[in-house]
Amino acid sequence: MAQAHSALERTKQDMAAARQQGYVDEVQLRTVLYGGSNEWNTHTRIAGTMQRDPVFDKSHRLYMTRTERYERALAMTRRIYELKDQHHWSDTETRVALGLIDEPIPISLHLLAFEPVFFSQASQELIAQYGLLIQQRGIVGCYLQTELGHGSNVAGLETTATYIPATQEFEVHSPTLTSSKWWIGSLGKTATHGVLQARLVLPNGSDLGPHLFFVQLRSLDNHRPMPGITIGDIGPKAGAGYAGVDNGYARFFHVRIPREHMLSKFSSITPGGDYIKPPHAKMSYGGPSGCDHVLDARPLLILHPRFISSCGWLMAKAATVSIRYTTVRRQGNPDADRLEQQVISYPSVHYRLLPILARAYVFILLGRDLVKAFDETSTRLASGDTSSLADTHVLTSALKAHSTRHAVRDLEVARRAMGGHGYSAYAGLGRLYVDQLPLVTVEGDNYVLDKQVVRSAIKAVKQLGSDGRDLPISLRYLSVLSSGVPPSIDATSWQDIHVVVLLLKWRAARLVQNLVSHSDKDAKYDASAEQRVAAAIAEAIVADRVAEMDMGIRLREKEKCALRNLLLLYLLVTAEAALADLLSLNLLPPSLSHSLRTATGLLCFAVLPEAIRLTDAFGFTDWELDSALGVYDGNVYEALWEEVQTEPLNQTEVTRAYEDHIKPMVERGHTLAGQAQNRAKL
Amino acid sequence: MAQAHSALERTKQDMAAARQQGYVDEVQLRTVLYGGSNEWNTHTRIAGTMQRDPVFDKSHRLYMTRTERYERALAMTRRIYELKDQHHWSDTETRVALGLIDEPIPISLHLLAFEPVFFSQASQELIAQYGLLIQQRGIVGCYLQTELGHGSNVAGLETTATYIPATQEFEVHSPTLTSSKWWIGSLGKTATHGVLQARLVLPNGSDLGPHLFFVQLRSLDNHRPMPGITIGDIGPKAGAGYAGVDNGYARFFHVRIPREHMLSKFSSITPGGDYIKPPHAKMSYGGPSGCDHVLDARPLLILHPRFISSCGWLMAKAATVSIRYTTVRRQGNPDADRLEQQVISYPSVHYRLLPILARAYVFILLGRDLVKAFDETSTRLASGDTSSLADTHVLTSALKAHSTRHAVRDLEVARRAMGGHGYSAYAGLGRLYVDQLPLVTVEGDNYVLDKQVVRSAIKAVKQLGSDGRDLPISLRYLSVLSSGVPPSIDATSWQDIHVVVLLLKWRAARLVQNLVSHSDKDAKYDASAEQRVAAAIAEAIVADRVAEMDMGIRLREKEKCALRNLLLLYLLVTAEAALADLLSLNLLPPSLSHSLRTATGLLCFAVLPEAIRLTDAFGFTDWELDSALGVYDGNVYEALWEEVQTEPLNQTEVTRAYEDHIKPMVERGHTLAGQAQNRAKL
Repeated sequence: MAQAHSALERTKQDMAAARQQGYVDEVQLRTVLYGGSNEWNTHTRIAGTMQRDPVFDKSHRLYMTRTERYERALAMTRRIYELKDQHHWSDTETRVALGLIDEPIPISLHLLAFEPVFFSQASQELIAQYGLLIQQRGIVGCYLQTELGHGSNVAGLETTATYIPATQEFEVHSPTLTSSKWWIGSLGKTATHGVLQARLVLPNGSDLGPHLFFVQLRSLDNHRPMPGITIGDIGPKAGAGYAGVDNGYARFFHVRIPREHMLSKFSSITPGGDYIKPPHAKMSYGGPSGCDHVLDARPLLILHPRFISSCGWLMAKAATVSIRYTTVRRQGNPDADRLEQQVISYPSVHYRLLPILARAYVFILLGRDLVKAFDETSTRLASGDTSSLADTHVLTSALKAHSTRHAVRDLEVARRAMGGHGYSAYAGLGRLYVDQLPLVTVEGDNYVLDKQVVRSAIKAVKQLGSDGRDLPISLRYLSVLSSGVPPSIDATSWQDIHVVVLLLKWRAARLVQNLVSHSDKDAKYDASAEQRVAAAIAEAIVADRVAEMDMGIRLREKEKCALRNLLLLYLLVTAEAALADLLSLNLLPPSLSHSLRTATGLLCFAVLPEAIRLTDAFGFTDWELDSALGVYDGNVYEALWEEVQTEPLNQTEVTRAYEDHIKPMVERGHTLAGQAQNRAKL
Repeated sequence: MAQAHSALERTKQDMAAARQQGYVDEVQLRTVLYGGSNEWNTHTRIAGTMQRDPVFDKSHRLYMTRTERYERALAMTRRIYELKDQHHWSDTETRVALGLIDEPIPISLHLLAFEPVFFSQASQELIAQYGLLIQQRGIVGCYLQTELGHGSNVAGLETTATYIPATQEFEVHSPTLTSSKWWIGSLGKTATHGVLQARLVLPNGSDLGPHLFFVQLRSLDNHRPMPGITIGDIGPKAGAGYAGVDNGYARFFHVRIPREHMLSKFSSITPGGDYIKPPHAKMSYGGPSGCDHVLDARPLLILHPRFISSCGWLMAKAATVSIRYTTVRRQGNPDADRLEQQVISYPSVHYRLLPILARAYVFILLGRDLVKAFDETSTRLASGDTSSLADTHVLTSALKAHSTRHAVRDLEVARRAMGGHGYSAYAGLGRLYVDQLPLVTVEGDNYVLDKQVVRSAIKAVKQLGSDGRDLPISLRYLSVLSSGVPPSIDATSWQDIHVVVLLLKWRAARLVQNLVSHSDKDAKYDASAEQRVAAAIAEAIVADRVAEMDMGIRLREKEKCALRNLLLLYLLVTAEAALADLLSLNLLPPSLSHSLRTATGLLCFAVLPEAIRLTDAFGFTDWELDSALGVYDGNVYEALWEEVQTEPLNQTEVTRAYEDHIKPMVERGHTLAGQAQNRAKL
């Protein structure tokens, strides 16, 4: 038993030792990550309230059916508003609470799509009538855009809203199965109302393309679908992701809604059936450029820079769980203490995990950094000034695609780096991964975003003057073209943040130039060009911000040094992944790729001793992480053991499958074996 | 309604037209893929029997709890043996039937691990006693190696089997929680017996390291665990993968087993307690080289080349589903017929999907190709000849890591290329993905395999003589080093299979050379070096086989041309992904990267018209694919619609969550909105 004791004690000792060996003060870093100690204190207080509340208990979540997961999501939502009333939480505090729910829930569609679209697009009259109910969740809304047959191409939507002057109503109709609204979060079983995208058809038959309408979906008396509307859930998702959300479908059969329910802030229909155009096409809120009158509010909503921080926090979870587990997991050759080596001590392991840690810091800070620019744009836009809209759109498009791709990839890299146990659902990262997958496809397919980013860069490079200083943030990397020659790289360059930043900017700028100049007939066959160039642009934009972050660090020396190491590590792994570009563009002599790789590896060794403290700085509680492998105290094996005892299959000693299937199979085998034995004896 | 009709008809028309436009005869290609028309006929007959049988119905699988999925897996297994008896299936036919079950099931562990390890390692006496029962599934077995605290490092296992001369028994004991056997497939609730790895401890206390023992786990009378053994299931896996398999744990408390139950073909214990060594360390079946006496039978089992074909068939499913769906899905700009474009017509889409198609062909054929070499090794080994064991081990290690990484990645790339609907569980690929994930971590972590592959390459390159012709298959790429200078590449090289093969071999050979020569103090910081070099070696080995395949094609002209295009496409995308290496090694002038990319894109356009027929050649029925988006007739939207009607949430009009949670929330909202309105009036 002494040995048994010591084996488990060892994981805790390893964790304590790893904490001990670091020098950075995680409180300082935490304050930076949370944007202030008040924010951190609020976070802690709210998380404490929630994790004491049985409604937010996670211990049986993995065993629930999808229906139970959906009901649990609603129970948590209701409870949040009860707690808000009890504790007099502000809206900000309530948002923190909702953010602490670590899975997608239906109410998000109300908060992130329905509510903001309604308030930005509805007339004052409609807001007066429904605004308070929407703000207080007296009605619960969803945003009905995507159809079964059409996703990101809004222009192809088939649902119609035909104006009927006689009754001053619109008749909403789904002419085909493919025009069924599909994938709409919260529509399946929850939402009472929705904002609907439908083609506006005038009495004279002219089709004005997609416009927005406010529609009631379910009765407020009994929650039954309104007459003429067929609604349902669209079923489970890949890997059991998004289990708590009732993504749904709706089909409309000649459903009438009042004329006033068209969202008419910018365009409207007169009682007689005349169309009043929006004052400015761009007021229709940042639809994909080139598509006129596309009232697609999504880009500006989903692409909110807060989203970039969210990706950073996901990476933070991936880094925390995997770095903690590989710190206490020992495997392989004995180390100096005659114990097997800590898994994280293998370069092939920490080389995969520490870049995730670095990226988490970069994206959390980057998101905060960009919120300011975004808020300014929103303020300007509200007063009719669209001057910075294009920049914000490119910026958020580029970084959305970039940050979501990395978040999803990092979750999976971290999971795999944990080896076999990473595949246990109790490890926690698999759950986050499947929930994040839609980020890379749904809601503005990243490939579509890439196209827009590249298009704006090409336009800019063609117009580029000699002075690049006035370029907006999203195009600032192009300034290198007018300011000199590429940096000359040698093996010492990899210690210099500013040289690496410059290199990444040159790479993006040159790639854009090449796209412009490649006019050979085969250029169109370079099928991944847009994707590669868009990624390079995003990386150049981030690199530019990283250089600013580096200059703006207000921390004591040790913490500043640790943070600077993370920023540099982010840049080096970015450059390493860009090697094919850097070499193709002659920005790097072939002989220096090896030095870049070893510089990265060397920097990882510098970051390693601080790794546990740097993850502690994220401030996750065990309840937040919900990972047996990522527990704070390192006691991973007992945590796994305890989880396993709750597995439903373990609640009976002998499975029901025994009488039904195993016993007959075994009896058959005995009979056949007996027969064979007898034959052999004959 | 006419429009509704036509929208759905169009998907079917698109599919029919895509079939029509191709020229290749899929029957010819199918015969090649299945290795003969007899094999294809057997496959069809067995698949037909199964898909008519309700036990193999898949229509409610997605809604089942894990317990139900487990019970279903056992029901299917039992049914297969019933059908075997009814239809007098041969063992080969039964294997085809088991292979048609498109998810992991517990009996696989009996068939792929327990049974072959038992027969290759047990004494004749033990085989006489249990062999027939094992062959006829009169007992159901599992293979207990991995422990909670130890995975791939077999030397670190803690479970002990101490010999007790007085009773001529072993006492099996798990001294610690971490020594619990863990992750063992079929152990949780199914297996009656197992082959156990435990450290052999002699009466004098000396520890001889891991050896194999035959143990009874559960009573054959009532299926209860045997005295002293604690058994259970280890819980759900990431993304709800492997739901039907009861991966389990077992802890032994001083459990006695007879002396004869040690698997004693190569080493044994005398009644008095003396150890009889194996005649030859390597007879212990291909454990990682460098580890003596590691009785790890897994490499040779799991790494069977059939495994490579399996990966190919997974890629085939990924390619079939995604190419079919993107053929009938239309989105974006109108094409010549004024319809929106078929999604597959976008280069950014088919550039992602056609390489998966090409890789499927390559890996299916490669697996078959290598089975011969493997069977020869097995035959030789049985007669004590270990001369080709090392080559086979490197070959299968290299290709296992390589093919599994690609299979998992391709499933996900294909899923994402389908956009939003790809995230629906009905799309089918998400399910395959989560089931395949353990391939990249469990059972010989790919990083461990990489290390072995690289080690053998370094050894070979140091010993390399002037004549490379006698090199075994796994090292044949090194022959370029003694045979000349790298090929000189120009823009026309990308049409020549043999030049690209040569380039890929040079790249691998140079990378191995660099590893040997990089003796600078920083070289050890290149943390991904082993992984990159191992991948390059695997790609060089495959390229070598692809060149052989190309020369060995026995098909008519059109089919030969189509297959050759696929082989070349495989090589080009492999070279493209290797660009950073090719440029770093000066094997390719920087100015030619663009030509490589456009050559790939151009070749995709050549493959595109045949894509549907090339996927048809895989011969999957709709039941096999179980994907609403991959249906043969292209009627994807109706298929989705029909699936959705079976979703449990849709079986009631109003969710239970309404009374419990939505109604209280909405009522609260109405109250608060009313209060706010009243305040505003005051």
